[in-house]
Amino acid sequence: MPEPFSFRLLCADGAARRGEMVTPHGLVATPAFMPVGTQATVKGLAPEAVRAAGAEIVLANTYHLMLRPGAERIARLGGLHRFMNWPLPILTDSGGFQVMSLSELRKVEEACVTFRSHLDGAMVELSPERAIEIQALLGSDIAMQLDECVKLPASRAEIERAMRLSLRWAERGKRAFAGREREGYALFGIVQGGDDSGLRAESARSLIEIGFQGYAIGGLAVGESPQVMRAMIEEVAPMLPADRPRYLMGVGTPGDILAAVARGIDMFDCVLPTRNGRHGVAFTRFGPITLKNARHAEDARPLDEESPCPAARTYSRAYLHHLCKSGEMLGAAVLSMVNLAYYHELMAGMRNAIADARFATFRAEAEAGWQRGDLPPR
Amino acid sequence: MPEPFSFRLLCADGAARRGEMVTPHGLVATPAFMPVGTQATVKGLAPEAVRAAGAEIVLANTYHLMLRPGAERIARLGGLHRFMNWPLPILTDSGGFQVMSLSELRKVEEACVTFRSHLDGAMVELSPERAIEIQALLGSDIAMQLDECVKLPASRAEIERAMRLSLRWAERGKRAFAGREREGYALFGIVQGGDDSGLRAESARSLIEIGFQGYAIGGLAVGESPQVMRAMIEEVAPMLPADRPRYLMGVGTPGDILAAVARGIDMFDCVLPTRNGRHGVAFTRFGPITLKNARHAEDARPLDEESPCPAARTYSRAYLHHLCKSGEMLGAAVLSMVNLAYYHELMAGMRNAIADARFATFRAEAEAGWQRGDLPPR
Repeated sequence: MPEPFSFRLLCADGAARRGEMVTPHGLVATPAFMPVGTQATVKGLAPEAVRAAGAEIVLANTYHLMLRPGAERIARLGGLHRFMNWPLPILTDSGGFQVMSLSELRKVEEACVTFRSHLDGAMVELSPERAIEIQALLGSDIAMQLDECVKLPASRAEIERAMRLSLRWAERGKRAFAGREREGYALFGIVQGGDDSGLRAESARSLIEIGFQGYAIGGLAVGESPQVMRAMIEEVAPMLPADRPRYLMGVGTPGDILAAVARGIDMFDCVLPTRNGRHGVAFTRFGPITLKNARHAEDARPLDEESPCPAARTYSRAYLHHLCKSGEMLGAAVLSMVNLAYYHELMAGMRNAIADARFATFRAEAEAGWQRGDLPPR
Repeated sequence: MPEPFSFRLLCADGAARRGEMVTPHGLVATPAFMPVGTQATVKGLAPEAVRAAGAEIVLANTYHLMLRPGAERIARLGGLHRFMNWPLPILTDSGGFQVMSLSELRKVEEACVTFRSHLDGAMVELSPERAIEIQALLGSDIAMQLDECVKLPASRAEIERAMRLSLRWAERGKRAFAGREREGYALFGIVQGGDDSGLRAESARSLIEIGFQGYAIGGLAVGESPQVMRAMIEEVAPMLPADRPRYLMGVGTPGDILAAVARGIDMFDCVLPTRNGRHGVAFTRFGPITLKNARHAEDARPLDEESPCPAARTYSRAYLHHLCKSGEMLGAAVLSMVNLAYYHELMAGMRNAIADARFATFRAEAEAGWQRGDLPPR
């Protein structure tokens, strides 16, 4: 009998929290960052490298995997952990966000969302129940309810409609999930409500009433200003139960993450470290560094000689510049590695700082480092 | 004072030879395969991975590196070994072959070849002396003379003209190289002469008269039949000094390599293992396996559970199929790794077989394995 999913709050420093999740595939220290493995691979990196970068959990996308190679196929192959050779925890999204952002044709109805696959044009249905079924077939440790996420700006009426639909889908998702909690798996509800405080509060209250093992804040980082995003987090986070993990979906830059941890968020996922890595941008304690920039062309220094990540210490900026200019895969892989390692270094730094009751100082120092910017040219 | 370049013939089995090269950056056991690191990176793999695949030496391309990032720049950055984080031996080609195959506009004259860069359209000159200078700036352990390689079929007159020009360039290259031998570096001459035995013999004799530390056979695998290629090797190899390494440029498939080792060749380079890896083809003891093929879609077996390469044992065929269908970088990287590991496993197997005087048996067994083909579907 596996241990049930649990979350233990270890300590807090202001609103910032340090905790620990127990999942069927192991522990996750929080605040945690989840690299995105859209198509059952964190782009450009082998699973050992993702682990070496410090990841304890990855996110995979239901939308992509249901279309290719298919959830039933992955189940027949022993589940997603085995399929992608990632033995540690996996969180899967519900597919809803990508149905909205990737499929050209879609129809949202009470029963389900129907969309045209971006791969072969086939019409596909995704209901709250099917989203749960798919995530169970994948074997994800943490599943997400199907929701409807609206891009901002949007009218209050539109935000409200989607929020209420998401609540009804949350209830249906929970019913469909029944029984899996006993096997140690978790289902998270998703707070919607756009940039409207009242709707956000209603969404949070209703979800808590339904009852989930964790709560996500969805529908942010979808077009609103950073101010609005931070204000929404500040209003919603305190409403969520203190003994459950809080997950801010799809966020964000290192600065966004520090700001959200300061407001009580425990979990994050974002494509930025890998996507920007593929586009030649490194995240460092000096802020983002654009390796294609000509200033690096003859710079024999590594990205950061004091980084705990070997890739950030080994390769010269000049070499990374060359790889990026030449479109070589190794550049994308090295920078994805460097970026994931930096994100996880930041998360570990935050966890330690919270334990030592110096989170505010840690945050101020990190931000000051980014403000100072990159090393002067030599 | 570095040890001078040397080649020691350890034993022979028929015409097949086992030997050892000493270079400024270490030993290379022969027969040796050199992965191609065109733009100062073996595509898709970090240097540690290339080493882990069994490589003791890599090839880099003068043509690409002279255009980007430039030989002088690499020299200012401490040379190519340091630039690409590859501390072991490097052989560089002279640039001639790629001037012929990649640049749109080119003019071959006695003094030099002038060509239009495929990157920025600039007109660039490459003389036999400049080819040596560039390779010295890169710091390559083994440099190649500039030659002119003609695509086959070609007229005897054209083949003869290019062969004689290559001989004159060989002499000029050797003069330009003077002094570098004392520092332990090596320069190889290149036998040309197309598919004409008489011209090949003349080229070989003249090069030996000039005197090089090793001899390459160029101008093969450029459009001729495998029969012609093998016949040319069979005629040329025995003419070359037994105490110098023999390098067959740009070859080839595992079968080509076995056939050439059987005829006395010691060194090879080829893009096939990495290029085919990027295109979803694995080289295995069962022959080439096309992972995109639907037969692998639900095959939970690894490529080869008995492979010494962890990547060939770890990932399921179904997962590799998925990565290839999805165009994920990890598929290209894993298959490049698997292929390089297989090539090096084959080279090690040949070296051991030669030492044990059972090369013919080893070759027959390898070929029988490829003939039997892939595992039957389960």
